Amino acid sequence: MKGIYKFNFDNVLKDKIGETGISVDEIDELRDFTNLAKANVTKKYEKGDLGFIEVLNEDLEIYEEVKELSKEFDYIIIIGIGGSILGSKAIHQGIYGSSNTYHPKVFYLDNSDPEKIYETLKAVKLEKTLIFVISKSGNTVETLANYFVIKKHMDKNNITPAKPNFVAITGGGLLQKIADKEGYMCYKVPENVGGRFSVLSAVGLAPLACLNVDIHNLVKGAKKMNDICQTDNIFRNPALLNSLIHYKMDNTGKKISLMMPYIGRLHQFGMWYRQLWAESLGKDGNGQTPVIALGATDQHSQLQLYMDGPEDKIMTFLKVNTFKQDYSIETDYDSDLKGHKLSELINSEQLGTEKSITEKGIPNVKITLSELNEYTLGMLTYAYELQTAYSGELFCINAFNQPAVEHAKKLSHAVLKGSIKEKSYNEIKIE
Amino acid sequence: MKGIYKFNFDNVLKDKIGETGISVDEIDELRDFTNLAKANVTKKYEKGDLGFIEVLNEDLEIYEEVKELSKEFDYIIIIGIGGSILGSKAIHQGIYGSSNTYHPKVFYLDNSDPEKIYETLKAVKLEKTLIFVISKSGNTVETLANYFVIKKHMDKNNITPAKPNFVAITGGGLLQKIADKEGYMCYKVPENVGGRFSVLSAVGLAPLACLNVDIHNLVKGAKKMNDICQTDNIFRNPALLNSLIHYKMDNTGKKISLMMPYIGRLHQFGMWYRQLWAESLGKDGNGQTPVIALGATDQHSQLQLYMDGPEDKIMTFLKVNTFKQDYSIETDYDSDLKGHKLSELINSEQLGTEKSITEKGIPNVKITLSELNEYTLGMLTYAYELQTAYSGELFCINAFNQPAVEHAKKLSHAVLKGSIKEKSYNEIKIE
Repeated sequence: MKGIYKFNFDNVLKDKIGETGISVDEIDELRDFTNLAKANVTKKYEKGDLGFIEVLNEDLEIYEEVKELSKEFDYIIIIGIGGSILGSKAIHQGIYGSSNTYHPKVFYLDNSDPEKIYETLKAVKLEKTLIFVISKSGNTVETLANYFVIKKHMDKNNITPAKPNFVAITGGGLLQKIADKEGYMCYKVPENVGGRFSVLSAVGLAPLACLNVDIHNLVKGAKKMNDICQTDNIFRNPALLNSLIHYKMDNTGKKISLMMPYIGRLHQFGMWYRQLWAESLGKDGNGQTPVIALGATDQHSQLQLYMDGPEDKIMTFLKVNTFKQDYSIETDYDSDLKGHKLSELINSEQLGTEKSITEKGIPNVKITLSELNEYTLGMLTYAYELQTAYSGELFCINAFNQPAVEHAKKLSHAVLKGSIKEKSYNEIKIE
Repeated sequence: MKGIYKFNFDNVLKDKIGETGISVDEIDELRDFTNLAKANVTKKYEKGDLGFIEVLNEDLEIYEEVKELSKEFDYIIIIGIGGSILGSKAIHQGIYGSSNTYHPKVFYLDNSDPEKIYETLKAVKLEKTLIFVISKSGNTVETLANYFVIKKHMDKNNITPAKPNFVAITGGGLLQKIADKEGYMCYKVPENVGGRFSVLSAVGLAPLACLNVDIHNLVKGAKKMNDICQTDNIFRNPALLNSLIHYKMDNTGKKISLMMPYIGRLHQFGMWYRQLWAESLGKDGNGQTPVIALGATDQHSQLQLYMDGPEDKIMTFLKVNTFKQDYSIETDYDSDLKGHKLSELINSEQLGTEKSITEKGIPNVKITLSELNEYTLGMLTYAYELQTAYSGELFCINAFNQPAVEHAKKLSHAVLKGSIKEKSYNEIKIE
């Protein structure tokens, strides 16, 4: 499997967007700063802190067992939330899209919304469903709740698949205890791999192997990107360069990082990036708010704001040269579209929008993939993981924790237990 | 059909969030300012400029014809983009969710991505598919391209449904010409109804009637909200009050309007709001960037940033008291979740998160619906349309145009025609 990855940064340069921009010389002069960031990441890796790099050397044969098991099933349910599920969802949809018309069909239980579990139970046959339960801590309440409901539903209705149909992916907690007691097939989440950096560990690879994603080429792409990013020449290191660009733009008030793929299959990749960027850097008043838009669709929803609203955005275009399918636009009516392909139309919209926002002085970068397959998706995914690690260094932020959410969890627990009640003082009520 | 709508603004008040907040007195003192905004909207309506209010008085019997026709079909395709499709999608998913397991199945062609049309053609039987083609101008390129491809596909493959299967909804342009020539059933988009305000016109109601949405109760809810909002007492007018709150928060640097429903069925409503808010107010450097998150899912992705990142957000929680289905969490394992319902869990997460971000001083409002049905969704939808109209007045922005996107369209057209080519100067290429 092959593919070409291009990172273009023309449109963050001063000669393109004016004073907001940066110059090649400026980037070059920051060499000590960026090399230190890179060296610090290497140091953390050598200390054993960065599991997301270590997993590149994992033996992928360990996923043959679950892949073999999955052949007994027609449906897959993945129970998880946040980093436990966003990675596999992004990669699966990156390859197969969101139509869910391929075998096996996949369903994501990533919320504690009861209607979601109802719709899922309606859509699958549980005796033909392989169910992944994924939580690094093993104690994630939404994940456990979904598991308990499905397990009880099976027990009550005497649903007994031909082969055991639960697979746990965890690093401990109650889920580990359950897996041990029930004898579930189990994969380990390494201690040094954080949820949002876990897509190339068992968290992502075990379900993806069962969903007919070529995980060997996925990891091969990631390794290729890792090799490329060993260089100290920032103009040859797309992760480091994009990290610096976002750092500089953040410094000039671009507090929103807008990612806009021009292919539906990459929309979910945007949602994965959204967690990675937000949770890693959103600390101590710092961080950029990630916003995901889909081209060309959102030109008809968000472009007015991007063009003419507050100047608080740096954009990333994601573009694919060759689509899996294509159509010629043919008609007997008088239309300029005649004779063009749909792929030409969407890619001309990308370039037109890029030109237009560049003229407006809005900084933007572009990643172009020759085609969207496991290899190029592996490159893309890993580039963003590494970029995020570099950015932690540039912003002097620990990119690998998420301290602020613990308090909300405690309050939610207190509400559930009844020790905090809802009170309304200022309210308009309409019946 | 009934339902209760509550708008709570406790958590924007100074006594809850400190200096960032506003006070009830302050709101009261701005009476002249808000009443002028309201009066200006009324004036525009009386001048005949605000079709989104006029359509409340439309005779809904006109949709019986297309509803009757739709009974011949098992699938519905809606071809449209932006305001032509976001409204019907939001309402349909608000009632039926996104599982697409109800009859008739619905597919949205809202992009020029060739893979999307391929997946859609794979999933439907065209001879059993009613196809809406929606474009107010009648010249939207993505919409015409999708129509041309499907039409040619049917002609080439001699697919002839028992009844004519195209319905045009337009205000003119090439689509009107095509509809006339081909003899399609046709609904008019009134001149004074803009795309993003069109959900309660034919643009939304014609397809929704065919999708078994109770459009009578939808409009009834909207009318109820319209009646409520006739009052000059801002503390009884949720649209005007929320408009003022967002205006005040924008003035203190809250440049991101974050909407977070705690029920999957309202996620697409968020995407509708996203266009409404962005395109109406994102002008001349003004406007808030709308961000849509889903509770509880995004607590595990975005909450760290919301809690501890830049203080640039005002949040809106959307909450539903009663879900269509519910489950008790039962297990033999030792867990605090035992005995609770899933709906209790998700709503305790909402309240815990609300308490937590309020303690952090982040302004937030909450809309609670007793249940999510056509009536309450009608109230909700219309409240936001009216709020957006009021906001145009408060911000002194024309909320009903979108001038900035025209140039991007021209450039895209030039790219398609070959007069602008892609050139790369500063690029990292990886093979």
